[in-house]
Amino acid sequence: MTDPAPLLRRMFDAAVARAMPERCLPRFLPSPPKGRTVVVGAGKAAAAMAQAVEAHWPHESRLEGLVVTRYGHRLPTNRIEVVEAAHPVPDAAGQAAAARILQTVAGLTGDDLVLCLISGGGSALLSLPAPSLALEDKQEVNRALLKCGATIAEINCVRKHLSAIKGGRLAAACYPARVVTLAISDVPGDDPSVIASGPTVPDPTTFADALGTLARYRIAAPSAVMEHLRAGRQETETPKTDDPRLRGIETYVVAAAQESLEAAAEIAREAGITPLILGDSLEGEARDVALVHAGIARQVLRHRQPVAPPCVLLSGGETTVTVVGNGRGGRNVEFLLAFALGMQGAPFVHAIAGDTDGIDGTEDNAGAIVSPETLGRASCLGIDARAFLANNDGYGIFSRLGDLVITGPTHTNVNDFRAVLIQAS
Amino acid sequence: MTDPAPLLRRMFDAAVARAMPERCLPRFLPSPPKGRTVVVGAGKAAAAMAQAVEAHWPHESRLEGLVVTRYGHRLPTNRIEVVEAAHPVPDAAGQAAAARILQTVAGLTGDDLVLCLISGGGSALLSLPAPSLALEDKQEVNRALLKCGATIAEINCVRKHLSAIKGGRLAAACYPARVVTLAISDVPGDDPSVIASGPTVPDPTTFADALGTLARYRIAAPSAVMEHLRAGRQETETPKTDDPRLRGIETYVVAAAQESLEAAAEIAREAGITPLILGDSLEGEARDVALVHAGIARQVLRHRQPVAPPCVLLSGGETTVTVVGNGRGGRNVEFLLAFALGMQGAPFVHAIAGDTDGIDGTEDNAGAIVSPETLGRASCLGIDARAFLANNDGYGIFSRLGDLVITGPTHTNVNDFRAVLIQAS
Repeated sequence: MTDPAPLLRRMFDAAVARAMPERCLPRFLPSPPKGRTVVVGAGKAAAAMAQAVEAHWPHESRLEGLVVTRYGHRLPTNRIEVVEAAHPVPDAAGQAAAARILQTVAGLTGDDLVLCLISGGGSALLSLPAPSLALEDKQEVNRALLKCGATIAEINCVRKHLSAIKGGRLAAACYPARVVTLAISDVPGDDPSVIASGPTVPDPTTFADALGTLARYRIAAPSAVMEHLRAGRQETETPKTDDPRLRGIETYVVAAAQESLEAAAEIAREAGITPLILGDSLEGEARDVALVHAGIARQVLRHRQPVAPPCVLLSGGETTVTVVGNGRGGRNVEFLLAFALGMQGAPFVHAIAGDTDGIDGTEDNAGAIVSPETLGRASCLGIDARAFLANNDGYGIFSRLGDLVITGPTHTNVNDFRAVLIQAS
Repeated sequence: MTDPAPLLRRMFDAAVARAMPERCLPRFLPSPPKGRTVVVGAGKAAAAMAQAVEAHWPHESRLEGLVVTRYGHRLPTNRIEVVEAAHPVPDAAGQAAAARILQTVAGLTGDDLVLCLISGGGSALLSLPAPSLALEDKQEVNRALLKCGATIAEINCVRKHLSAIKGGRLAAACYPARVVTLAISDVPGDDPSVIASGPTVPDPTTFADALGTLARYRIAAPSAVMEHLRAGRQETETPKTDDPRLRGIETYVVAAAQESLEAAAEIAREAGITPLILGDSLEGEARDVALVHAGIARQVLRHRQPVAPPCVLLSGGETTVTVVGNGRGGRNVEFLLAFALGMQGAPFVHAIAGDTDGIDGTEDNAGAIVSPETLGRASCLGIDARAFLANNDGYGIFSRLGDLVITGPTHTNVNDFRAVLIQAS
């Protein structure tokens, strides 16, 4: 049997590679227009997507524009400007970039083309408060939303209704130019209206939905935010599907979690291991999602179900972490720590989990890796794994164990990737 | 395609039937001894197990004893007395029964046989506080443990160390009689030391583990409890594997979740539906376990993975509910409500979940059933499903929808049963 840790790492790397813009984007590029081609966009993959456009756009055709990506995610480009801004809580740089993007698409004609490059993180990066709101108001709501356990769809609904650019408003600003949106999906169901809060996509949600989310999670939003949401009217609503300005919008999802899971499944098959893809969009509290993965792994060990070992359980999607402690780390290390505790050192079971964008939360790691020895090694170091989980300190424990997976920013983002390898028992 | 609701109900009924004592217990009965045969036991299945022993025990051989079951779970018996007590929080009736059981097995000889009939719920029903503790102390700790989200293993560790009968102490009291324990498992891994807190099984846990659990969940236990646990010494510890009094103990698990899941799988196969058993011992917060089931169901619909429809996802084990609201209902209705919200009315997906003991929590239902129409029907009745979930009121919503599954006490208990049916998409 292949050494499990390198094999799991190869699966993760294959999942990321399948979603790289240079690989997945070019075949979706339209023909150059009669008029100007303006590239705009936002997200963790924005710089790599801009590079891919530049590399494959006909040299004789003019190309200009501006995309915004996360700090540390800039890549060299020639014709498309790349600016950096803050994520996950928006800052003034993102706000300035969003305003410039709206200026850039203003005054285009029906002969012009807007290429909109959208990827995960774009919601925070492309942040322009509605006129009555200050950036601080949005930041405060954002922080509360990220901590409360709301789903990404719920978070984005609120963001769209506090924004001057999200939820189809950017597409409305491009009118009457042709708009082609190329999106890398990090959301369940790969719905383009959800990816980066869908700046070029009609928005089915309403001011009332946004208020409902704030109420559901008991979020005390600044009074300006509450007034803005309560004052919402049809004229200020996000554009809906019947909006004539959005009629011709073309949207293509160029990469998504499923294809990355399939790439990992191919690595498994080549190694003689049965892949079982559980889902490309699993949701739920990370530690509980981990217990279910552990329960399935135990079933494989005890009953050779749902498949016989050697096998690998693969899943994608975005779990949530309801933060109660003050530890460090993102969803993936939280998942892995809870998974290791759920397995209690059972033999034959190894796992990797990581954010395909290369950054799990706000630390320097993409994820980590666990083995049957994880808890024992922690114990030898005097580490109480349960206490680290109670403190949401997945980064702390895997850092001390030397088991972090560090890739640096990958410049793409199809959400989390999890693989649980169960060798022959 | 068969009508989904009756099909799911047949799967649930088959799962319960497979675990009925009359069906699974007789083949484990030993030969009658030279001396006396004393039957003791506790659990939701105790009365049905006693009936099965009486029906299959040689008529010429004397049989006596006492078992304790939950209020409302008594069944008619001839030679074995059945008493009723409170569950899940112990009461004086359970305490009196436990004391009588210890008296019943006192003074036996090596020629005698103790048949110990153990099933889920036995831990609360067979409750005898250690001499320094009052029943109220144990009740208070029990209530806090049941509400805090602790696993059943953690709860039982504390119970064993506050008890005069659990954690192998009953077996020690039977010495030198032969002890045969027949157990119906409601615990992950079917470990007899965990079922009903293992009254006849050596206990690997310690006073320190019990204190650790109380600390982990920040439970403020009565001072008598804390003093008792802190005063724990080797002489007062639960019997360990090297205890000579427990050397000859025989223990058989006569029914467990896996066999019941297999019974449901057979029903599915007969209906032309592929069964996929995810695990017989899934754990985790009910609403998050539900989201994972929903994520897998979506994967079946979108990608025909991990299996193609028509299929049924089957799982067992015990989820937890961290109670924050004041609604009614147990783990299974909480699971189903969160599942319905996770599916958002997606077509082709129906689900059933129920406690195989017939009582989900403390209400009159075993569980409930959901369909693609569940949320829409709730909405028509003016019911905000999310608000019901936030209030832990699964019973309330399914009761108003008329979608409860009501069986009455089944007189067995192999924990929860969940089936998610995905028809052809």
